[in-house]
Amino acid sequence: MRSISLRPRFSETDALGHINNTAVAVWFEAGRMEYIDDLLAAIHGGARSWVMATQTLDYIAENFFGSEVRVDVAITKVGTSSFSVACRMYQNDKLTVRASAVLVFIDMNTKKSAPMPGDMRAVLTSELEPDWES
Amino acid sequence: MRSISLRPRFSETDALGHINNTAVAVWFEAGRMEYIDDLLAAIHGGARSWVMATQTLDYIAENFFGSEVRVDVAITKVGTSSFSVACRMYQNDKLTVRASAVLVFIDMNTKKSAPMPGDMRAVLTSELEPDWES
Amino acid sequence: MRSISLRPRFSETDALGHINNTAVAVWFEAGRMEYIDDLLAAIHGGARSWVMATQTLDYIAENFFGSEVRVDVAITKVGTSSFSVACRMYQNDKLTVRASAVLVFIDMNTKKSAPMPGDMRAVLTSELEPDWES
Amino acid sequence: MRSISLRPRFSETDALGHINNTAVAVWFEAGRMEYIDDLLAAIHGGARSWVMATQTLDYIAENFFGSEVRVDVAITKVGTSSFSVACRMYQNDKLTVRASAVLVFIDMNTKKSAPMPGDMRAVLTSELEPDWES
Repeated sequence: MRSISLRPRFSETDALGHINNTAVAVWFEAGRMEYIDDLLAAIHGGARSWVMATQTLDYIAENFFGSEVRVDVAITKVGTSSFSVACRMYQNDKLTVRASAVLVFIDMNTKKSAPMPGDMRAVLTSELEPDWES
Repeated sequence: MRSISLRPRFSETDALGHINNTAVAVWFEAGRMEYIDDLLAAIHGGARSWVMATQTLDYIAENFFGSEVRVDVAITKVGTSSFSVACRMYQNDKLTVRASAVLVFIDMNTKKSAPMPGDMRAVLTSELEPDWES
Repeated sequence: MRSISLRPRFSETDALGHINNTAVAVWFEAGRMEYIDDLLAAIHGGARSWVMATQTLDYIAENFFGSEVRVDVAITKVGTSSFSVACRMYQNDKLTVRASAVLVFIDMNTKKSAPMPGDMRAVLTSELEPDWES
Repeated sequence: MRSISLRPRFSETDALGHINNTAVAVWFEAGRMEYIDDLLAAIHGGARSWVMATQTLDYIAENFFGSEVRVDVAITKVGTSSFSVACRMYQNDKLTVRASAVLVFIDMNTKKSAPMPGDMRAVLTSELEPDWES
């Protein structure tokens, strides 16, 4: 599991006075990339070999400009050619967002999905937190 | 059902050479707002009385800069204080994204969810396309 | 000169209730790319061979969600390895933004700026509107 | 003067493989808001009373995903109803961007520009670094 902290940007607010729903997808990507890139940096180009198959974002409470947001990301499932991540965001210790996504491994030569290499699968599996699933 | 057309922006591409997953959430909002704002413009402030409870984005094929994207949006369910929308995106006639969301009616005085007014419910119900559900 | 029309997106508003200043940079890019890509599509990869050296954005009046914005772009100067563009944006026929930028030609092999090819220079020069300079 | 550090987000890259020019405007706002909001938090609503009149962004070198960016912001001029900020960004200790902007004080009741209150002017003036001007 990995926890990052980020500051909402004023451009991420919208005319309703809170953080726009689309900014949350950007924060989820930020947390996910930092975690996965670090895990896999030494193997096969890090997070760049993955494309998103699906993501779900549950908005539990509003986020606002002016306070940091904690983004926790965990790996909840590792398959043959894909893995799943779950995410929880907090602002002022209040849960504001739950999210999940499935990422598919892409062979950069064929540009198609493919079974992931064994060393990559081993690293991801060592991080597995199945109880974390939303 | 409503269909809008939009041009991907170069800033929406990412270093993988395609449209970034987060831009798709922006396009979904653009289609949804145009549809709902037009439907409800004369009633209770249009789409501004709604906040997103949840959204799911399924990435079926890549989108690229350089060709228009068609965004089709339909209302698939109308509840007491919320409704559901479904969305399909096409680029060069190829289905690239399926998405869905639940939007909750907010009473702008109390800032809390509330049963939606009867005239609003009637307009949304008249647009219902339950078969459209992904 | 080229004129495009675009719909502000709700995610481009901010908590002050108007379009955020950073969205205007995205609109300027959208107008510029559409113009330059079309002009140069058949030559040397279109707008992709250019990087921005500098841009200035003058905010004359607020833009709002809900009405289309017209983005006019013109080429005001053509140099040896760069050219200048100017831009004016209008919402409901009111001038809201003036902008300008200098774009530098990059040789995609060396990744460095270089004199632009003669046919590219000829196309850009044929579009010159020096009086348009802000 | 204030220095903040931020991590580029993957969604801020573009198909040229580097950070898109429009993301730099977002970073400039992030640095500016953090500085000005902190300075003026106790006075008249902080940075929210300001709108941008003009900004210039000079792109000196590319920024990339994967390394933090340092954003330095300074106040270079204080007028009757406006002030000027300058900004320098660095990635891996290399200067990548210089920027400047003029912000105008808005009376939130009349929604028009107005002379700024004396205590606000005093705080901004105490931070003046005229030599910092680009």
